[in-house]
Amino acid sequence: MKTLLLKKEEVSRLISMKDVIGAVEEAYKAFSGGQVDQPPYIGIHLPSGGEIDFKLGYYKRNEVISMKASSGGFPDNPTVYGVPSGMGTILLFDARTCALICVMDGSLLTGLRTGACAAVSVKALARKNSRKITSIGTGNQARMQIRAITEVMKIEKIHAWDHTQESLSKYKADIESEFGIPVIIAGSAKEAVQQADILITTTRGKGSLVEADWVKPGTHIVAIGTDMKGKQEFDPEIFRNAKIVNDSIEQCTDKGETWHPLNRGIIAKEDIHGEIGEILLGRKPGRENDEEITIFDSTGMAIQDNTTSYKIYQNAIEGNVGTFFEFIA
Amino acid sequence: MKTLLLKKEEVSRLISMKDVIGAVEEAYKAFSGGQVDQPPYIGIHLPSGGEIDFKLGYYKRNEVISMKASSGGFPDNPTVYGVPSGMGTILLFDARTCALICVMDGSLLTGLRTGACAAVSVKALARKNSRKITSIGTGNQARMQIRAITEVMKIEKIHAWDHTQESLSKYKADIESEFGIPVIIAGSAKEAVQQADILITTTRGKGSLVEADWVKPGTHIVAIGTDMKGKQEFDPEIFRNAKIVNDSIEQCTDKGETWHPLNRGIIAKEDIHGEIGEILLGRKPGRENDEEITIFDSTGMAIQDNTTSYKIYQNAIEGNVGTFFEFIA
Repeated sequence: MKTLLLKKEEVSRLISMKDVIGAVEEAYKAFSGGQVDQPPYIGIHLPSGGEIDFKLGYYKRNEVISMKASSGGFPDNPTVYGVPSGMGTILLFDARTCALICVMDGSLLTGLRTGACAAVSVKALARKNSRKITSIGTGNQARMQIRAITEVMKIEKIHAWDHTQESLSKYKADIESEFGIPVIIAGSAKEAVQQADILITTTRGKGSLVEADWVKPGTHIVAIGTDMKGKQEFDPEIFRNAKIVNDSIEQCTDKGETWHPLNRGIIAKEDIHGEIGEILLGRKPGRENDEEITIFDSTGMAIQDNTTSYKIYQNAIEGNVGTFFEFIA
Repeated sequence: MKTLLLKKEEVSRLISMKDVIGAVEEAYKAFSGGQVDQPPYIGIHLPSGGEIDFKLGYYKRNEVISMKASSGGFPDNPTVYGVPSGMGTILLFDARTCALICVMDGSLLTGLRTGACAAVSVKALARKNSRKITSIGTGNQARMQIRAITEVMKIEKIHAWDHTQESLSKYKADIESEFGIPVIIAGSAKEAVQQADILITTTRGKGSLVEADWVKPGTHIVAIGTDMKGKQEFDPEIFRNAKIVNDSIEQCTDKGETWHPLNRGIIAKEDIHGEIGEILLGRKPGRENDEEITIFDSTGMAIQDNTTSYKIYQNAIEGNVGTFFEFIA
């Protein structure tokens, strides 16, 4: 029995953002199409403040089971131990036999597939003439969002806001050099939000950052930062008259941004338009006019890891990349 | 960052049953000593009837996190796909950094550490002059139990019973040739049970197999077969006057053999003597006289995989066995 081993550097050249966007679209369709089994994830909190999580997903049609271990929150790793502050490992199993077909480094995967979410939602929900992105938050995931969205929409300007000037300046320099798209540093979050065709939040904040009356009609909102209880980025009033789309209604109403307006009674569960997978499957409409505000609440799902890592595996097999190892002779 | 890869054949020569018994003792002590974090396991049931489970354990003192993926119930694997009907993979992480330090084949681990349970319980709870084992059930795990117990107790005779004559004859031939211990095939379960100094059940049965009045005073019972809801091997009346020891009180009262007498009101939770780890730590007595019936109910814990696989890893490093692979350069 042969297991393919893939290093981080191999993974990085085996997959393009275009591939990831395709894989994430497939994941959403599979999920809303009843092709997915993904039990609640399990994790361990270390005394140092770091964390390691294990996310399991089964894609029935493809007969692939994935398990992603991913760690984060170890700031001393690089200096004290000479390893990254967050790492990841993915196991792929052939669901017909449960044979281990691949062990790959998974450090890059979460960032890539989370970026791709934005692009998928932009295709389904943003105005076709969207040219301006507003980015609230300027860290790694904010960059990944731009990388993904520019694959599917011609972006001409980015308005950015963050808590620290240093992070903003670095973001401006990096984005302008990587994409040649001018970045305007906003004087306030409000100023930035008012400019948005597409509004992205990646702050992982713990309170409302974006007020409802800042958001102009026709804006598409990509709410990335809230993926667990206690996190919040939006004034829940924004949800009152918006078209609300979730990656997983079950997850978003439990721990996503969508939980907040539900909890406050601003919306009822029936006010959620649907899951992005339902839109991609053609079961529900996406954007219906240029005036509506659309919100895509993304909490992240194991099936995204599954389809993305399997695509990497397929590309490796096709391109003869990687090292085979026989755990069982 | 280097990750050690270990094949099944390497794992098999890296660990002795003596090592496993030591590792399982350490696991029990760690668990009852508050050194363990092991979240509920997650799994996927495949349409074919097979299953794959993921068990996560963190041993705080050692700073080691283990994740065991183990599959079973794929009878067509050998003939149709050329792979075993059940397989396993273990990941070990350094808990200080969450770096992946080892990927090893885990096919042998569950069998070994489950066998070792019996030996640990026999040391703590069986009469020192126990010479006769009764084995109800004659499959792989029944053999593993003998392999483990003979490491800690001089066994002179084995009485065996099972549903099928064929399985019994094969067990007799195998055990007599491996250990030189005579195996007596019993005419009935009752006849076998009445002979026991140590009574082992490994049938994974779904109803009472062993009646209370068959068990003679002084018997030590190792209840292995019941590790999930719906399974049962004993008349719950056996628990009424016995010294009841669990691997994990939380697990055994939820899904072990101990659940049945609790559910029937035959015992209360306070009647459970304690956890085996408490006995090993010297916090509670083991067997106190030659007349009491002792029951060890074992449901299996992730921390047993943790300490056992880490011992294998240490032996590999010491003995220069295995292959290093750099997932992250």
